Formats: sequence, C-alpha cells, structure tokens
Amino acid sequence: MAQQKKMVEEITSMDEDFAKWYTDVVKKAELIEYTSVKGCMVIRPYGFAIWENIQQILNSKFKATGHENVCMPMFITESLLNKEKDHVEGFAPEVAWVEHGGSEKLEERLCVRPTSETLFCEHYANIVHSYRDLPKLYNQWVSVVRWEKTTRPFLRSREFLWQEGHTIHATSEEAREETIRMLNVYADFCEKYLAIPVIKGVKTEKERFAGAEDTYTIEALMHDGKALQSGTSHYFGDGFAKAFDIQFSGKDNLQHFPFQTSWGMSTRIIGAIIMTHGDDNGLVLPPAVAPIQIVIVPIAAHKGGVNEKAEELRAKLSEKFRVKLDSSDNSPGWKFAEYEMKGVPLRLEIGPKDIEKDQCVIVRRDNGEKVFVPLGELEEKIPELMQAVHDGLYQKAVDRRAEMTFTARDFEELKDIADNKPGFIKAMWCGDRKCEDQLKETAGITSRCIPFEQEQVSDKCVCCGKPAKHMLYWGKAY
Amino acid sequence: MAQQKKMVEEITSMDEDFAKWYTDVVKKAELIEYTSVKGCMVIRPYGFAIWENIQQILNSKFKATGHENVCMPMFITESLLNKEKDHVEGFAPEVAWVEHGGSEKLEERLCVRPTSETLFCEHYANIVHSYRDLPKLYNQWVSVVRWEKTTRPFLRSREFLWQEGHTIHATSEEAREETIRMLNVYADFCEKYLAIPVIKGVKTEKERFAGAEDTYTIEALMHDGKALQSGTSHYFGDGFAKAFDIQFSGKDNLQHFPFQTSWGMSTRIIGAIIMTHGDDNGLVLPPAVAPIQIVIVPIAAHKGGVNEKAEELRAKLSEKFRVKLDSSDNSPGWKFAEYEMKGVPLRLEIGPKDIEKDQCVIVRRDNGEKVFVPLGELEEKIPELMQAVHDGLYQKAVDRRAEMTFTARDFEELKDIADNKPGFIKAMWCGDRKCEDQLKETAGITSRCIPFEQEQVSDKCVCCGKPAKHMLYWGKAY
Repeated sequence: MAQQKKMVEEITSMDEDFAKWYTDVVKKAELIEYTSVKGCMVIRPYGFAIWENIQQILNSKFKATGHENVCMPMFITESLLNKEKDHVEGFAPEVAWVEHGGSEKLEERLCVRPTSETLFCEHYANIVHSYRDLPKLYNQWVSVVRWEKTTRPFLRSREFLWQEGHTIHATSEEAREETIRMLNVYADFCEKYLAIPVIKGVKTEKERFAGAEDTYTIEALMHDGKALQSGTSHYFGDGFAKAFDIQFSGKDNLQHFPFQTSWGMSTRIIGAIIMTHGDDNGLVLPPAVAPIQIVIVPIAAHKGGVNEKAEELRAKLSEKFRVKLDSSDNSPGWKFAEYEMKGVPLRLEIGPKDIEKDQCVIVRRDNGEKVFVPLGELEEKIPELMQAVHDGLYQKAVDRRAEMTFTARDFEELKDIADNKPGFIKAMWCGDRKCEDQLKETAGITSRCIPFEQEQVSDKCVCCGKPAKHMLYWGKAY
Repeated sequence: MAQQKKMVEEITSMDEDFAKWYTDVVKKAELIEYTSVKGCMVIRPYGFAIWENIQQILNSKFKATGHENVCMPMFITESLLNKEKDHVEGFAPEVAWVEHGGSEKLEERLCVRPTSETLFCEHYANIVHSYRDLPKLYNQWVSVVRWEKTTRPFLRSREFLWQEGHTIHATSEEAREETIRMLNVYADFCEKYLAIPVIKGVKTEKERFAGAEDTYTIEALMHDGKALQSGTSHYFGDGFAKAFDIQFSGKDNLQHFPFQTSWGMSTRIIGAIIMTHGDDNGLVLPPAVAPIQIVIVPIAAHKGGVNEKAEELRAKLSEKFRVKLDSSDNSPGWKFAEYEMKGVPLRLEIGPKDIEKDQCVIVRRDNGEKVFVPLGELEEKIPELMQAVHDGLYQKAVDRRAEMTFTARDFEELKDIADNKPGFIKAMWCGDRKCEDQLKETAGITSRCIPFEQEQVSDKCVCCGKPAKHMLYWGKAY
C-alpha cells in the first residue's frame, strides 16, 4: 500500500492545478511522451490503442453510411492552397513549408497539409464529369500539421491525427443532409461510446471553418468548466467547386457546379475523454474504447491455484473482452493504483477465499463499487457492469454540465458568471459580429455554438441590448 | 461484347510495353490518380481497400508476435537525424526539409521522416532504463517521404505508406532472432496471402540499409524479369544505442547498451501484386486481399426474378465474403471486362436458365475456368474456388520464376544472360565490393541477396575468378 500511496501522490490534484493534473495523467498513464520537436509527441501503445478503438468504431459508422477510405498526399503546392481565398487566409499563417528536397531547392514550395480540401478538390476535378459520378463519399485517416504557438498533448499539437471526410454531391440539399448526418454520427459516437454528452449546433460566422458556408459542431464541457469543440461538419455550398472549376454534366445535359462537405474528428477527442471522466486517481476510460476493459489481479498469489485460476479466467474472458492479467510480482496495492491510473473500467480480484466460494470480486473504476460475482455468472455480469460504468460516467457528465451551465440575461450577469463560475453560459445574441468581439474582449468568452435546441432566455442581445436573434452557448474554450 | 472489346483495347499489352501496361492498369483499375505534386499520388478507394486488407492481416501477425502499435511524429530535427553517421549519409540526400512554420523561419530545420529509427532512438532513451523495460516491440503505420528523382505509382513515390517495426532488446541474440522472425512473417505473408513466391536472404554490405549491421530481404520476381525487394528486416547491433546513448541497467546492476532491429513493408507490395499476377486484361488479385472477392453479374436481368435472386445471393454471401452485386444497366459484357480489369478473383453469373436449374456459373479470374455450382453448395464451394485461385496464382508465379532463373558460371555466361534473358541470375561471388560494382557497370545488374538456401554453382567468383564465398541472386531491380 505504500507504493499505491506513492503513485497517487505523484499526480497533482485537479482542484490544485487542472492543467498540471492533465499533463500528469497523460504522462503517468503512458499515453504520450514528448519529443525534441516542439509541439509534436509520441503516442505510446496505451494511448494509440485508444485511438485504434476510436478508429474502428468510427470506420464502421462511416462505412455503414456509404463512405470509402482513400489516401491523399501530405503535400499541397502553394498555388493549389491559394485557389480558394477564404481557405488560404485561414490556413496559410499556420502551415509548415517544405522548401528543399534533398539539396535541391523546390521550384514551388509545398505545405504539409493542415487539412485536405484543396487536394480533394483537385482530385474531384479529375474524376467527376457526370451526374453518374456523384456523390463521392470519401474519408481518410491521416495526420495534419498546424504550426500552433502554444501546444498541449492531444488538445493542440503541431501534428495531430484525425479523420477527414470529404464528400461531393449533385445538389445542395443532399450535401446539407450529409453535413447533418455526419454531425449526428459524431454526437452519437460521443454519447454512446465515449459517454460524453455534447451540444449540437452551428457556429457563428466568426467561428466558421475557413471556406465553409456553415460549420456545425458538437461542444462538450470539461471538468474545469472549459468547452471543447469535439467534432465539426462543414457545408461548403459550391464555393470550392467554383474556385477549383469542378463541373459535371447533369441529367439535363447542362454543366453544373457540385456541392461539398467535410467533417473531422481528431486525437483531441482523447483529451476530451481525459478531461470529462478523469479524477485524482488518474484516467477513467469508457469501456467501449478502453484498451484494457478488465484487469485481473490475483490476490495472495503465492497460495496454490490462484495464478492458475486467474489465467483460466483470462483465457475465457479474452474471447469476449479486452482483458489483461497482471501476474507480476508487484503488490496488489501497487497494481490497484496502476490500473486506476490507467483508467481500466473493471478490476477483477481473485484470491484463495474467492476460489473456495467459486466467486470473484469486481471493482468499478468510475465509482469504486465492489461486487461479488459467482464465476459461473461472469460472462453475463461483465457486460452489465460495463454498461453500468458507461451509464454512470455519462450521467455524472450530464449532471456536472447541468450544474455548470448558467443563464445570463444581461451583460452584468454574464460578466459575473464569466468571472466567477466556470462553465457554459446561455445568453441571447443579436447576430452582430461586433457583439461577439466585444464579449471576447470584455468577458473573455467566445461563442461556442447556436444550439439546435433553442430557448428564449430573454428578448435582447446580452451585449448590446438590441432584439435578439438566437440563444447561444458561450464559454472559455480549449 | 463491343464494349468489352473496347475496354480491353484500352490497355497496352504487357509484351508491347510493360511499363505502359503497368501505368494503364493502376489508372484503369482505379487504384491511383496523379496529383499536381510530382511523385505523390492519390490512392483511390479500390487501391486503398487492398492496403487496408494488407494492414489488417499484417497487424494481426504483428500482434500475435507481441508487437504494439505506436505513433511517432512526422518531423525529425536536423541534429537528431545527424546523430548516427551512416544513417544520415544514407538518407540526408533524399529528405524533404521544412524551413518555415507559417511566416516564421524555424531555428532548426526539420526533415519529414524518411524512416523513423532516430525518433524511436530518442524515445527509447527516454523510456528504457532497466532490463525490466526490455524488450520494446513497436510498430507504426505511417507515410514517409523520400525525394526520389524518378517516380512510379506504388513502386517508387516521394511519399509512400508503410509500416515500420522498431524493437529494442537486452541481448544481441534476441534482436537477431527478432530480425529473422519478422523476415519470416513477411515471407509467409507474401506466399500465403499474396501468392507471391519470394527468396529469403541477406543483402551484401553495398545494399545494406544505412546504419544496419545486416539487412535481410525477401526478393520477388516480376512478370518482366525484374526483381522487386518486397520487405526488409534490419539488425542494428548496438550501433544506434551508442550513437543515441541508450543504456539500461542489467540484472548484474551494470550499464549496458541494448540491441535494435527495424523492419518494413510498404505500398510497394501492391506494385508487386500487380506485376506478379496481372495480365493483358488488367489486374488479378489474390483472394486474401481483394476488396471484392466475388462479383455477382445478373444475366438477362430484365426477366422476372433475376435481380431478386442476385440480391438474395449477395445478402447471403456477404456474411462470409467480400461481395459486390453489379445490377447497373451496363451490359454483362461490359461488366465482365470491368471486373476482369479490377482483378476480382471470382465472377458469379446468374440468369433465368440458372435459376430454373437452381445453379449459377462461377468464372475464375486467374485462368478463365468456368464451373456450374448448385446454389445450395455455394458457401462450401466458394472457399474452395478461392483457394484454387490462390494456388493457381502461386504456382504460375513459381513456374515463371523457375523459367526465368538462370545460372552463370563465368562472366561471359553472365553477360549473355544479363543482355538477353530477363530474370534472376544465380552466380558465385568472392565477397569483394569491387566485383559487385564492376558487374553493375559491365552487365547492368545488382546483387539481390545472398539466399539462405545456398547452392555451389561453381567454385569461383563470376567476376574476378578468385575463390567464391557465396552464391548470390543477381538481377535488374525496381
């Protein structure tokens, strides 16, 4: 138990310093390691396994909705990047430029993709000619580079992994449907697999993706009351098609510009998992993406038959679940702390007394609840317990969000909340960019989204007092 | 049938111009598309699905041999790349350099990884301290960049996808075992899944990977008689550990340098599949990695019940195989040519007469063989037919390689073969680099490997006539 105490002490507590707690967790749970390239990180096996589970689930959702995976180059020529005015303005300031190949200076410099709209557009122009070629529903799993000034593991790194979906359609209606469909895929994924409740909505013009007509978002609330944009889906209209001269001949034999979308979710979502569910003992992982769903810890393993029984359980449970048996010579106390730190949803303890009674002990990571389970009932009990962990995590997050969501009817109220109560602020807005800018300046908050679920919390803009158009979620954001 | 003829005419025949045939196939089978970045390509859905199947099979082999996936950054600082002398000499001339992030000039330029030994070494130095930390058995699936002068889709592109395994061990014996284990994984994969026979052996010093003590290789022979290095596995000794100061305290409480390996297989292997099995009708895919294993083509589909029966078969067979039903309004002839071009291993035809007889027709892509199969026997017959396609492809490739492998006892014989007979040349070598250089200059061939299976084809070096040390495979290579 001395060792257990030691490990727990190594993490800063959330209340003391949330940022430090976060970096402690990502390091001690062995999710990442820093490198000599500032803002770039090694994603270690335990961290990468979470990402692989996310990939597998999302991939099956993307395929079920008709999408195919492709792979575009990582480089974009400067002239290609420059083709769509808004897009290049948004991204050029933060791209990495390749100027030499070996010792030879390139005729035209290349940027490392910060996102791949321009590459997809070039490709569409090559392969889309007729309405028969539409739609194209593509996705790719790659890494992208954005030269950020301040970086934090998963949340904001210069290189990050993501998937980017890119689709092209004959009609605007179809493209709009796709945009919302994929936003819903993201929202369902967050809620049903990651146990993270999200608010669905549309971004204001100020917060829109560079080149988009509309950017839809899902916004989650972290433990410290900051918002995290967890996935976005963009509707481009035919703006890119016009900039890249993508045209198709319709059933009417006339030439038309097609309509496009893109949507992405990144390794940032791992940051969201950490900051939604984690606690002072470390990571807490939702069962659906946990690399280890059950860790088996033998108790009094020197006694005859314990390790054998533990191995027998491991072998049987591994057929259905992701299981690890830790039969190392570390003490049970050390192991408890270690797998708590790593956020393993269920811990299964088995000792001589349990074997006598033909049972084992299962402890939930999310709330510490302990149950005795007859060995013969394990296979039906474990899914129930995993579901209970998921539901528990989700409910806790929903409750916390409710506690941390405030309503402001005028500026004074808003300023008071922004200064003193971390969380979401619901407040009305007139639709004017100036008010958004002003709230950022005076209260340090940004608009998170115009939620689909509107409420009329007042009639007037919280900033200027003019008639309000929408209710927005505001907050401080990662 | 007119349309079928038309499509077939569109591909250059292999005998007329093999290089043109190759690029025709990769384009017409919709594996890739070119981009405005020279030497970089779009891997289209059909091409990428082959890669996904390869990934899935190799990943399961890597995990079964105890490896874990990780993800390193794509950038390497110049000083990190420079740490191992041989390594930097080999790679520096062909890396892409990033010199600006946004508008800011970087203090130290970064190269886009051409391979990741240096990144893994930096990471090991951070995380390996004790013999308890060893071995680390890592792998990553990423893309790498090498600034090649001449490029060809899959075979040599400036950016390519690959997996790179990197392992670190307490002893040299263990690292050597790992090197050979992974070479065997590659060889088995090529033979049992891709139907590509390979020769296992070790590279000469001249052909070694930059920084390796030994490079092991599997070499395949393409349709045109050129060799293709299909996978490599490197033993590094403790050279990198010394250059990067990676040390661990052993059981003896003393500090030791660990031993390393790396091994890789890339999208190049898709080029090998194309050039081993393809024919004048297009691609021929081994069933294990074919995105579509069976295409169902309804015949006389306007007649009642045909499309329904075809859909019924699709639904049933999709539970076990990768199936596509093409019920478009293109003619059966057009469809036959289309899926031949795409290399689909089995074509299932079903028409009114078949339905009457409760049977269907299955045609093998590899040899055109046609069999009638009772519908009730489909599920057991299809795996047999897929195995037959695999075996047929493998045997054809083995036979061709035998026909195209020649033995040279002296220079005259070797020169005659090199000039007139495309293929492998088996010939003895004294072990002197000068002879290797000279054979390249005078006969245009390079050493492919010193095969594990040695034969004493003569006593003297084929070049200088001095006593021979090894029998080598020589040839022209991709």
